[in-house]
Amino acid sequence: MNIYKNPEKETWSELTKRPTFKKQEISEIIEEIFSEVEKNGDLALIKYAEKFDSAKIKDLQVTATEIDEAADFISEDLKLAIQNAKNNIKKFHASQENEIQKIETTKGVVCWRENRAIEKVGIYIPGGTAPLFSTVLMLAIPAQLAGCKEIILCTPPDNNGNINPAILFTAKLCGISKIFKIGGAQAIAAMTLGTESVPEVYKIFGPGNQFVVAAKDCAQKFGVAIDMPAGPSEVLVIADKNAVPEFCAADLLSQAEHGSDSQVIFISTDFKVLNETIDEVKKQIKELPRNEFAQKSLDNSHFILLNSVDDALEFSNFYAPEHLILAIENFENYIDKIQNAGSVFLGNYSCESAGDYASGTNHTLPTNAFAKNYSGVSLDSFVKKITFQNLSKEGLQNLGKTIEIMAEAEGLLAHKNAVSIRLK
Amino acid sequence: MNIYKNPEKETWSELTKRPTFKKQEISEIIEEIFSEVEKNGDLALIKYAEKFDSAKIKDLQVTATEIDEAADFISEDLKLAIQNAKNNIKKFHASQENEIQKIETTKGVVCWRENRAIEKVGIYIPGGTAPLFSTVLMLAIPAQLAGCKEIILCTPPDNNGNINPAILFTAKLCGISKIFKIGGAQAIAAMTLGTESVPEVYKIFGPGNQFVVAAKDCAQKFGVAIDMPAGPSEVLVIADKNAVPEFCAADLLSQAEHGSDSQVIFISTDFKVLNETIDEVKKQIKELPRNEFAQKSLDNSHFILLNSVDDALEFSNFYAPEHLILAIENFENYIDKIQNAGSVFLGNYSCESAGDYASGTNHTLPTNAFAKNYSGVSLDSFVKKITFQNLSKEGLQNLGKTIEIMAEAEGLLAHKNAVSIRLK
Repeated sequence: MNIYKNPEKETWSELTKRPTFKKQEISEIIEEIFSEVEKNGDLALIKYAEKFDSAKIKDLQVTATEIDEAADFISEDLKLAIQNAKNNIKKFHASQENEIQKIETTKGVVCWRENRAIEKVGIYIPGGTAPLFSTVLMLAIPAQLAGCKEIILCTPPDNNGNINPAILFTAKLCGISKIFKIGGAQAIAAMTLGTESVPEVYKIFGPGNQFVVAAKDCAQKFGVAIDMPAGPSEVLVIADKNAVPEFCAADLLSQAEHGSDSQVIFISTDFKVLNETIDEVKKQIKELPRNEFAQKSLDNSHFILLNSVDDALEFSNFYAPEHLILAIENFENYIDKIQNAGSVFLGNYSCESAGDYASGTNHTLPTNAFAKNYSGVSLDSFVKKITFQNLSKEGLQNLGKTIEIMAEAEGLLAHKNAVSIRLK
Repeated sequence: MNIYKNPEKETWSELTKRPTFKKQEISEIIEEIFSEVEKNGDLALIKYAEKFDSAKIKDLQVTATEIDEAADFISEDLKLAIQNAKNNIKKFHASQENEIQKIETTKGVVCWRENRAIEKVGIYIPGGTAPLFSTVLMLAIPAQLAGCKEIILCTPPDNNGNINPAILFTAKLCGISKIFKIGGAQAIAAMTLGTESVPEVYKIFGPGNQFVVAAKDCAQKFGVAIDMPAGPSEVLVIADKNAVPEFCAADLLSQAEHGSDSQVIFISTDFKVLNETIDEVKKQIKELPRNEFAQKSLDNSHFILLNSVDDALEFSNFYAPEHLILAIENFENYIDKIQNAGSVFLGNYSCESAGDYASGTNHTLPTNAFAKNYSGVSLDSFVKKITFQNLSKEGLQNLGKTIEIMAEAEGLLAHKNAVSIRLK
């Protein structure tokens, strides 16, 4: 836990640094996995399931029976909660649909855009320390809304060769029936290259460890798009004197528990709130089952006192956090000043977990300062926008000279001729 | 020129193949350029200008005087044409702005998205055989509309160390004042890494040769976003019996003149139109100053007879062309069947050059089958969308249990606690 009082702006660059990864060291492993999957298809995947997941599996694809039976292992409470979250996420993402708007830029020249779903998409859901069925909601709901024709899901089996029932239940609820017991980089390779069982897709979504991240980089070399580049999860909390230290500490810890590499930054304009939040963190962490992760993450966290919310936002924009919590009074006055962030939580009752699970916003967000140049996942992530234009004869008459002159000036006479020949 | 009559569907995969590039061979050159620019900054750039552009330059940045004087070298006709194109492009891209739409997903839980411009963007304009001032319009106009704070432009100097006046004039017209005499991969490296003169940017836009494309790949490794992956330009024309062979031939040639690697596909449902278009191509090509490029491109082109427009569209969706021209009757009946394309031109008077220059749509489009998973450049390309949420106390009371149950089921107790502590 590092504490800074009014650090000079020259030091901000150091304070906003992310840990660096050793990408190169694993790139050889990734290349080998892709090459194995390309060569041996399903067999390679079954081999990797045994090697990496200690699971002996015969069929890579989860059967309809397995999917149907998953519901028996889920409490009614959890089913209702998942359904409730689904409703909110669907409502918010449906609101992102655009109507077609035809624009007559010149008389007789009409231009517009239409959305088309990306036909084939793949969703990766990690196994590991938490069964992320919430991520199934976040990716499958917009994929369905967009109208993607083929939506497949890969997730690693446990060592009995089974998939967590909450993941299966949620996938079924969202209309996904092609689920594969494949984890890690080999899942990304399978969705990129296709195998006997796994169809290849045009875009891959979902979080994962450094192997999955590196594999998604590799997928791009094969022409497959990905949701966004990734790094460890992050939160930056800005608290003024009206913030509640108990709440702030709980938010910081809910980020810290994700993993030992999670990034946590707390900025307060009030020294008392800063100190009380630190005390609260120390108190609350004791109760957490995942406190080992949380402690490691907190060891690298920054607690910073700054003079004003404006300064805090300047720092935040420089850092570009995945999650930004404004535990301040009159937060509406500061929204316009937020430049770089993935998702923003306003006021004392907007905890990050609301957005992580059920408020409706997407939790697949840019980390590692990518909030400077990337958006989080939305309905847009599952569509392409095609432009259309129709020129009437009159339209071309009105615009023809402009095109001819420009084409000629660029030395592209055939471009000019395509107009001239029509106006002859 | 390859001619196919009703080719079997099994052969389509072969017919829609793009030429492959040798990416690896140049990756060492690119890495060396990035490393030189990182080490020696401006000096490296000046050295490369001499090496690659045969230009001795002192100052990398174009002076205000140079920019102002460019107007003297442009005809009034061209100025008017550029202004006219600018108006249309601005009108169409301005129509892509979204209003903020606040959604109450649960009572007391309000979610919305707001756009923020990407603060620093770089535009690359190639030199080479055509001075692409039209690309300045296509990239600078949406960047300005989005509100990007820093917009810089790099373009190679001629061997006298000068920039084409039409490029300077257009840049100025679009409000760009930071223009650098840097070409090729070294321009991409400079915008990625920053030098004494060149500011680093968060996203790089613009076309270029294979070195520029490879350098943009490399830029991504440094966390810089790019507009989209790239390949040679393409057109696919679908013509029925109502098409005008003269017009079709002119459109095919306007694609072919781009470069010897341009991709040209012509599909007709009418044998007479197919043959007459081939004859017209042979006739028109003789008149073109760039007929050497065009001929090479045409040597690899496909002229295909298919039974129906539906078949032609199936082929087109499989190929996913950058530009798709529907020179057919009742084109409105076929729009919904277009799945994969960058930009679509409808009817006999909608020539590709209209969209290349002046109708209003963007000409920076996905090639190389990337129309399956990428959109062309639009206003969206210059913004990030940040999600916001505000939960009132009542909102959290309504949604709290859902969040708690889901967090617990994922084993993330600190996530649960962030809610419980607020509801206590």
